[in-house]
Amino acid sequence: MLRFSQSANALRSSAIRELMNMASDPNIITFTGGMPNNTLFPTEEIDEIYNNLPIDVRRDGFQYCPTTGYPPLLNSLKEFLRQKGLPVDNNELIITTGSLQAINLIAKVFIDPGDRVITENPAFIGAISVFKSYQAKLDPVDIDEDGIVLPDLEKMLQIKSPEAKILYITPYFHNPAGIVYSQKRKTELLDMLKGQNIVLLEDDAYGELYFDQKDRELTKPIKTIPRLPVPVCYTTSLSKYLGPGLRLGCLLAPPDIFEKCELAKQSLDACSSTFTQVLAHEFLVQNKISGYLEKLRKVYLRRSQIMLAALQQYMPEQVTWTKPRGGFYIWVKLPEIIDATDILKKSIKSGAVFVIGQTFDPLGKKNNCFRLAFSHTPEDRIEEGIKIIASALKESMIN
Amino acid sequence: MLRFSQSANALRSSAIRELMNMASDPNIITFTGGMPNNTLFPTEEIDEIYNNLPIDVRRDGFQYCPTTGYPPLLNSLKEFLRQKGLPVDNNELIITTGSLQAINLIAKVFIDPGDRVITENPAFIGAISVFKSYQAKLDPVDIDEDGIVLPDLEKMLQIKSPEAKILYITPYFHNPAGIVYSQKRKTELLDMLKGQNIVLLEDDAYGELYFDQKDRELTKPIKTIPRLPVPVCYTTSLSKYLGPGLRLGCLLAPPDIFEKCELAKQSLDACSSTFTQVLAHEFLVQNKISGYLEKLRKVYLRRSQIMLAALQQYMPEQVTWTKPRGGFYIWVKLPEIIDATDILKKSIKSGAVFVIGQTFDPLGKKNNCFRLAFSHTPEDRIEEGIKIIASALKESMIN
Repeated sequence: MLRFSQSANALRSSAIRELMNMASDPNIITFTGGMPNNTLFPTEEIDEIYNNLPIDVRRDGFQYCPTTGYPPLLNSLKEFLRQKGLPVDNNELIITTGSLQAINLIAKVFIDPGDRVITENPAFIGAISVFKSYQAKLDPVDIDEDGIVLPDLEKMLQIKSPEAKILYITPYFHNPAGIVYSQKRKTELLDMLKGQNIVLLEDDAYGELYFDQKDRELTKPIKTIPRLPVPVCYTTSLSKYLGPGLRLGCLLAPPDIFEKCELAKQSLDACSSTFTQVLAHEFLVQNKISGYLEKLRKVYLRRSQIMLAALQQYMPEQVTWTKPRGGFYIWVKLPEIIDATDILKKSIKSGAVFVIGQTFDPLGKKNNCFRLAFSHTPEDRIEEGIKIIASALKESMIN
Repeated sequence: MLRFSQSANALRSSAIRELMNMASDPNIITFTGGMPNNTLFPTEEIDEIYNNLPIDVRRDGFQYCPTTGYPPLLNSLKEFLRQKGLPVDNNELIITTGSLQAINLIAKVFIDPGDRVITENPAFIGAISVFKSYQAKLDPVDIDEDGIVLPDLEKMLQIKSPEAKILYITPYFHNPAGIVYSQKRKTELLDMLKGQNIVLLEDDAYGELYFDQKDRELTKPIKTIPRLPVPVCYTTSLSKYLGPGLRLGCLLAPPDIFEKCELAKQSLDACSSTFTQVLAHEFLVQNKISGYLEKLRKVYLRRSQIMLAALQQYMPEQVTWTKPRGGFYIWVKLPEIIDATDILKKSIKSGAVFVIGQTFDPLGKKNNCFRLAFSHTPEDRIEEGIKIIASALKESMIN
C-alpha cells in the first residue's frame, strides 16, 4: 500500500494539462491557455544569437551554472529590472524555472501546513496550485477594476492577521481578470499593510505588455516604492515575452528571504537551464527585447480590439467584461444565475473553448464568469469564436 | 520579523555553490564537481540539430509543453529506456528538470516531516539535500564494493521498518563511491525487501558510462527485474551524457506514483524547458547518442587510468581507493585518525581541491575519506593534482 504524504494528498490538478490538451485540438477555436501564439516567438533573433555565440559560451550553455543563475544573465536582468525602477542593489536576484518556481520558492520558505495565504479572487491558477501543494489555507479577497478591494482585505487581515503569512497579488494585466492596479490602490494597499507581519508577493508576468505608452506608469511595480512597510518579493518571467519554453523567470527579494530561496532552489532543480539562460542574456544585452516587446504590444492590442469588438457585437446585454490595457486576458461576468460550465459545454460542442471562472477562485466556487485569452488565437478566428460563445450564452439565458 | 517555514529552517546548503566557486578558480586543479568537462559537450551535433529544425518545431521549443514532457522526447526516451530493458509500457515516464527534480518529486509525494528515508552511506549530496528539505530523518546504511551492506540494511529495516518510506540507492558508478552493484547484491536486496512497505528509488545517472563493454550487463537496472517486491521508481538524467545545462532528467514510475508526481511537477515548474527537450529528442531519435557515449566512455576511461596511476605512484601505503569501472569518481579512504578536512585545507594551499567525505555522509560525520572526480579535470593536470593531495596526506600522516 502506498503511503503518500499529506502534501501529495493535497495536490490537485491545476487544470493546465487539460487546457493544453484542449488547446492542441486544431478544429476548436481556443481562448484558453495563457501563452503567446507560436508564430510570435523570436525565432529569427534567437537563431542569430545562437549562431553567433563564441564556442566557449556555447559550451557554458551545456554546463551547470550557479543556483542563483547564469552570472551574465543575472547582470542583464538586473539592468532590465533597474530600468523599471526596481531596487536591484539592496535586494538579491535569483533566476527561476519560470515564475511559477519563484512562487514555489516563496511558498516553500514560508508555508507550514495549515498556514494562511491571502490571494486575490480570481487568482492565477498556478499560484493557487502551488499554495495548496504546501497545504496552505487560502483566503481570497475580491478585486475590482482598480485592484484588490481594500475594505475586504482589511476585514480579512483583522480576522486572519497575524496568521496570514503571504499576500499574493498580480497587479499588472491581471491573470485572469485583465485589470491593472491604480496608483491610488497600490498606495492605499501599502498603507493598510503597515504594522502587518506578512510578506507581499508581487507577481508581474505581463507588465511590459501595456498597449499604450501612457499606461507604462501604471505598471511601475509596488517594489519600486520607497520605505515599504512589509517585505516585498517581486517575480517576473520571460515566459510571456520571449516564450515559456525557455522556462525562465526571476525573483527579486530582500537578502534574508533570498538566502532561503537559494537553498530551496538547490534542492528543487540545482539551477535553471543554462542553455536557455545564455540565449536570454544575449537577447537582453543586445537589446533585442525593446523592439520585440514593441511588436508584441501592437499584436496584442490588435487582438484585444478584435475581441472587444466581437464581444460588443454578439454578447447579450446582461453580460459585462473588462477592457484590458495590456496583457493577454478579458474577464467576462455573467448574470448571477448563469453557470459558466454550462456555457463551456455548449461552446465546446460548437467549437470554442475558454476557462471557467471557478478555476480561478481559490475556493473553487464563483462560476458566473470566465476568462478569454486573446494571446494565442489567430486573429481571423477570434470573431467566430466569440460568436459561438455568445450563442451558447444566449441559448442559456433564454432557457 | 520573518516567519520562515519549518521546511525553510531545515534547509542546509548542499555545498554545490561552494564547489562551483572553487571549481571556477582557474589556478587550482579541481577534482570537485561531478560534471563533464566543457570541451566534451556535443556542441557540433547540437549545432547541426538546431540549424536543421523545421520552423514549426523550432517554435514549439519556445512554447509550454505538457507537464509530463515534450511528447516526441517522451517517445524517444522511452525507446532509449526500452533498450536498457526497462518496463516502459506498464510504467509512466515524466521528464524532469534534471534527475534532482525526480528525486524531489518522489520526496514531495511520500515524505511528511519526520518520515524516515534509508540512504546509502556515502550518498549523493543532492539527494541528501532534497530529503532534508522535506524534513525527512535519514537512516544511512554503509556500502561496500558490491553495493549496500545487506546485514546492515536488514538491521535498519528491523529497527525502522515499517516507518521508512523510501530506500534511495545509486547502484551504477556510485556518486561518490564509484562502485557498481553486483548482480548478486541486487537480487539479494530485492529478496530482503519482500514484504516491506517501502518505495525503492533507483538513481542511475551514470550507467551508460561503463568503461568496458563487458560491464554493460552490470548496469542493467533493478527496475528491469520481473516481479519486483516493492514499487521501484527509476530516475536517470541527460546531465552526465549530454550536459547538465539542458536540465533534463526523467522518472519512470508505476502509474499511481506517476500520477502524484505529475501533479507535484505542475506546481513546481509546470514543465521542463521545451527548448532543450526539442534538442535532446533529436539527439536521441537521430541516434547521435550511441557514438557520442562511445567517445565519452573512452575519455573517462583514460582519465580514470591517469588518476589511478597517479594514486598508485604518490599515495602513502595506508590509503586505499576504489577502481572505477565507469562513471566520474574515485573514492579515497584514509586511516581512521586522518580528517579529510585537514588534508583539503593543505591541498588547497598547494593548488588542488576535492570533496571531503563528510559532505556525502547523511549524518555529516565520517570524514576519513574523500571524493575525486576525474570527469572535468584536464588530463595533463591530473597527475600534478594527485601529487599535491598525496603530499598533503603524507605531511599529515607524519605529524
